[in-house]
Amino acid sequence: VRVVLGANRYGKAEVRLVRLDRDTPHHEIHDLTVDVALAGDLDAVHLAGDNTNVLPTDTQKNTVFAFARDGVSPIEEFALRLARHFVATPSIGRARVRVREHAWRRIHDHAFERAAGTRLASAYVTGRTEGGTESVVGGVVDLTMLKSTGSEFQGFLRDRYTTLEPTSDRVLATDVDARWRFAAPPDDWDSVHAAAKDALLTAFAGTHSRSLQQTLYAMGEAVLRARPELCEVRLALPNKHHFLVDLAPFGLDNPGEVFYAVDRPYGLIEGTVRRDDAPPEPDGHDW
Amino acid sequence: VRVVLGANRYGKAEVRLVRLDRDTPHHEIHDLTVDVALAGDLDAVHLAGDNTNVLPTDTQKNTVFAFARDGVSPIEEFALRLARHFVATPSIGRARVRVREHAWRRIHDHAFERAAGTRLASAYVTGRTEGGTESVVGGVVDLTMLKSTGSEFQGFLRDRYTTLEPTSDRVLATDVDARWRFAAPPDDWDSVHAAAKDALLTAFAGTHSRSLQQTLYAMGEAVLRARPELCEVRLALPNKHHFLVDLAPFGLDNPGEVFYAVDRPYGLIEGTVRRDDAPPEPDGHDW
Amino acid sequence: VRVVLGANRYGKAEVRLVRLDRDTPHHEIHDLTVDVALAGDLDAVHLAGDNTNVLPTDTQKNTVFAFARDGVSPIEEFALRLARHFVATPSIGRARVRVREHAWRRIHDHAFERAAGTRLASAYVTGRTEGGTESVVGGVVDLTMLKSTGSEFQGFLRDRYTTLEPTSDRVLATDVDARWRFAAPPDDWDSVHAAAKDALLTAFAGTHSRSLQQTLYAMGEAVLRARPELCEVRLALPNKHHFLVDLAPFGLDNPGEVFYAVDRPYGLIEGTVRRDDAPPEPDGHDW
Amino acid sequence: VRVVLGANRYGKAEVRLVRLDRDTPHHEIHDLTVDVALAGDLDAVHLAGDNTNVLPTDTQKNTVFAFARDGVSPIEEFALRLARHFVATPSIGRARVRVREHAWRRIHDHAFERAAGTRLASAYVTGRTEGGTESVVGGVVDLTMLKSTGSEFQGFLRDRYTTLEPTSDRVLATDVDARWRFAAPPDDWDSVHAAAKDALLTAFAGTHSRSLQQTLYAMGEAVLRARPELCEVRLALPNKHHFLVDLAPFGLDNPGEVFYAVDRPYGLIEGTVRRDDAPPEPDGHDW
Repeated sequence: VRVVLGANRYGKAEVRLVRLDRDTPHHEIHDLTVDVALAGDLDAVHLAGDNTNVLPTDTQKNTVFAFARDGVSPIEEFALRLARHFVATPSIGRARVRVREHAWRRIHDHAFERAAGTRLASAYVTGRTEGGTESVVGGVVDLTMLKSTGSEFQGFLRDRYTTLEPTSDRVLATDVDARWRFAAPPDDWDSVHAAAKDALLTAFAGTHSRSLQQTLYAMGEAVLRARPELCEVRLALPNKHHFLVDLAPFGLDNPGEVFYAVDRPYGLIEGTVRRDDAPPEPDGHDW
Repeated sequence: VRVVLGANRYGKAEVRLVRLDRDTPHHEIHDLTVDVALAGDLDAVHLAGDNTNVLPTDTQKNTVFAFARDGVSPIEEFALRLARHFVATPSIGRARVRVREHAWRRIHDHAFERAAGTRLASAYVTGRTEGGTESVVGGVVDLTMLKSTGSEFQGFLRDRYTTLEPTSDRVLATDVDARWRFAAPPDDWDSVHAAAKDALLTAFAGTHSRSLQQTLYAMGEAVLRARPELCEVRLALPNKHHFLVDLAPFGLDNPGEVFYAVDRPYGLIEGTVRRDDAPPEPDGHDW
Repeated sequence: VRVVLGANRYGKAEVRLVRLDRDTPHHEIHDLTVDVALAGDLDAVHLAGDNTNVLPTDTQKNTVFAFARDGVSPIEEFALRLARHFVATPSIGRARVRVREHAWRRIHDHAFERAAGTRLASAYVTGRTEGGTESVVGGVVDLTMLKSTGSEFQGFLRDRYTTLEPTSDRVLATDVDARWRFAAPPDDWDSVHAAAKDALLTAFAGTHSRSLQQTLYAMGEAVLRARPELCEVRLALPNKHHFLVDLAPFGLDNPGEVFYAVDRPYGLIEGTVRRDDAPPEPDGHDW
Repeated sequence: VRVVLGANRYGKAEVRLVRLDRDTPHHEIHDLTVDVALAGDLDAVHLAGDNTNVLPTDTQKNTVFAFARDGVSPIEEFALRLARHFVATPSIGRARVRVREHAWRRIHDHAFERAAGTRLASAYVTGRTEGGTESVVGGVVDLTMLKSTGSEFQGFLRDRYTTLEPTSDRVLATDVDARWRFAAPPDDWDSVHAAAKDALLTAFAGTHSRSLQQTLYAMGEAVLRARPELCEVRLALPNKHHFLVDLAPFGLDNPGEVFYAVDRPYGLIEGTVRRDDAPPEPDGHDW
């Protein structure tokens, strides 16, 4: 039997980079974690340990820092600039650069407090011989939301292992991982990001939820309707369970006030919402 | 040789509790993690496995939930109520109840987004036979701050292992763990908390820092000067290093703009600041 | 423009289950984390909040526990039994059940110590109307290995951002994530697992490494050659960097003895090795 | 009111260091995380930002690496050597150096697999003007153990919040944090460590447990009886709950076989066991 090499890629992961912009009256801060993954003509290194075509991951890290000299914001553009650069290397046919930007809030002229929520951008670029395509994804991760009412779960399928009681009013909480694909580069990446994030929050808060799946779809649809530049949204929403505590053994009622929050297990709802005219995406982009 | 039992305690740790207040037009949310630690007449259980005096940790958890029925805010009071209850058990002489409250920001009538920063309260109460004392500590943890200028480090001691260059302008970043002891119960726990936290932020941002030790002392002093109810502040400040990247190999300068953020190792500065008339604290309170 | 639902699935994640087998002279322990993900006829719940076809994730959790009554080992079979059960539900067309088994080492008749390394199994089953296919993957994760010699990295591509020096002797360390697909169910899942894991360790230790890519391919090939039941191996190998410390400023040499271990960034090498006669896999199995 | 500086210290935390010993036929590996904390004449830096007496934490890190050139094993000695060095600095009166050694298991001549369990050592040394004392602590952390039988919990105190049922046979699991103080330096640190760890395991496995407190005391006593060089043991044992799953709703019994493992909350049992002739310890050593 013959053994062969299949899909492969390599890169530097979790480059931690802080960029200060000092040419404004008040400094700006951009705090990033960057992941690079490259693929190309890499059979020789796998099969024979021949590194001729291998751009070291150390070089990739250096490149991230050097490119940061010219600015890193908006991160969708920074990811694109880096990915385009990497595929200009002859042996590198495909580059995926993913950037997470950690939020800070200004508390004083030049002082900041770390805030919740992370903006994400991922650019996937193929070299000329592989089609010369570009695909950009934006998103938010580490965004935790909770509704204290306006959520129910009933009418579900029951089998012999079902013990769950239907509920007409529950706490709904989730850590949003939402990523959206651009049909084409927008004029203003920041305004698209702001509009998409706002649509997510509004849809989560405003949808009377019969299930987390329904909320997921509503959030995805809201993002797509908010900005025509976006054509596809992928969401992963853990259902962070909050169970009502039974206080009856202590002679107390519990009218929806005292809950215990459970870490594991959790529900996990994943789904894609897209426009029916979404352009195709080049193969190989893991958002 | 004789082997003897020394200091000991036990309890339930990390009880995760969410309390919704529903009697206001817009719900309020309080998201807590509670740790209980009890000590007392516990020789028999250690030496002979005799559980007669052992209030189960499961009961302690139940008690936390039951007490939450009457509200959990401010957390300093919730911790006190619980600690007083536990020392009413004859075999329990000392109780420490520590509560962390995780921040949420309202995004809609009944919808919330998790925010950065955690409020902390710790109450230590001894039973009548152990003096009947009460000690309360408040604080903040998980508060990450960064200054992009106004920080230097020079004039330090050098020995044969010193290679560090002095710097007149560096990035200063830290995860604040700040805890303050109350000299006496205040009229309004919330306003003390707000004033103390504000003092921390203002001192961090406003102090021209020659060292993180100096900043630590300034932060502690600011907290004490902000509120006379507070008599002692303990701070633990990691120095989260941000190193300027050398871009010269790539033909670029780097005028304080591109940094790499390092996870480990980190400096760790710990210190206490107190009023010289601070009342003594009962033995045994680990804040 | 029309917005439509794309790929989606849901399930219960991270069910923590410990199974004791007591019918042997010495108890056996199996410590599992189980993830379930189901897909099927789920448009109505996303588009209209109609839960008729939704088997609750709570029920999925119950099912995992109930099935554990009949044993959980080997985990490849446990995952298959669960996945087959779920697709017997009419509205559920596809089920992926992933199981991680955390290692324990016996220290006494009925006492155990947690050990390093986690065994993984993932079964993907489609219902009759979707082809009735079955795909099983095994593997190991959380397996950290290090070679203190026999690893070099030189002859690599250089560009204007390259500063790395070639090395003929470096420390090579990685956290192995290795997963292998079964061409067909074997007679004995445990013996395949043992042989595949042994092949991984031997190939890592025994390959003189010119790059981590070469080591990755050697590890994958060794697994495939060890057992004909396996047809495809996917590996993700972080390059956990250990940098030689420059002790010259202190008047000391460092002949490959003192290293600092860096958390981030790290290289990440991912690749697939397969037999050229590997049978196709049903769409949709995320290993 | 006057504000004053209280207890304080500073240092470099989490220095990650790997030491290879190459002068044996097969390399030896020592994988350490080192924390340094120094105290002394540091008022000026806190009050006025005067760094004259401040040995930089960067220098402390360099020192750790430089001292590693002469070997790092046994870690109790390495910690002592470092602490003695630091208090030779005139402004530094007290040094605590804590070392954790992460376990590796040889899988081949020069290849290793990471194993569970971490050895700990902590040396606390005061300078001549502060008494010139030395205190050494050893221990183990990250050691997870489980007994599948031989553990009960009954006869406990009940109050109005107690709902727990007594049990005569439960799963007992814990993550051991055990630290022991040396009365005097032993001839052979490694053999004391091995004997103490073995005593812990044997006592955990061999004690029929009526409560985790009883097991804790038995473990501490076993350590002290194993080696006369040790005079005090401190243990922190979380009670990692494993709850029997009720399978009755599915028509199944559950004779002690299927459990769910809960992350939070957990019991936490802390205690000290000492010889009654234990010498006093210098103030200020946080083990």
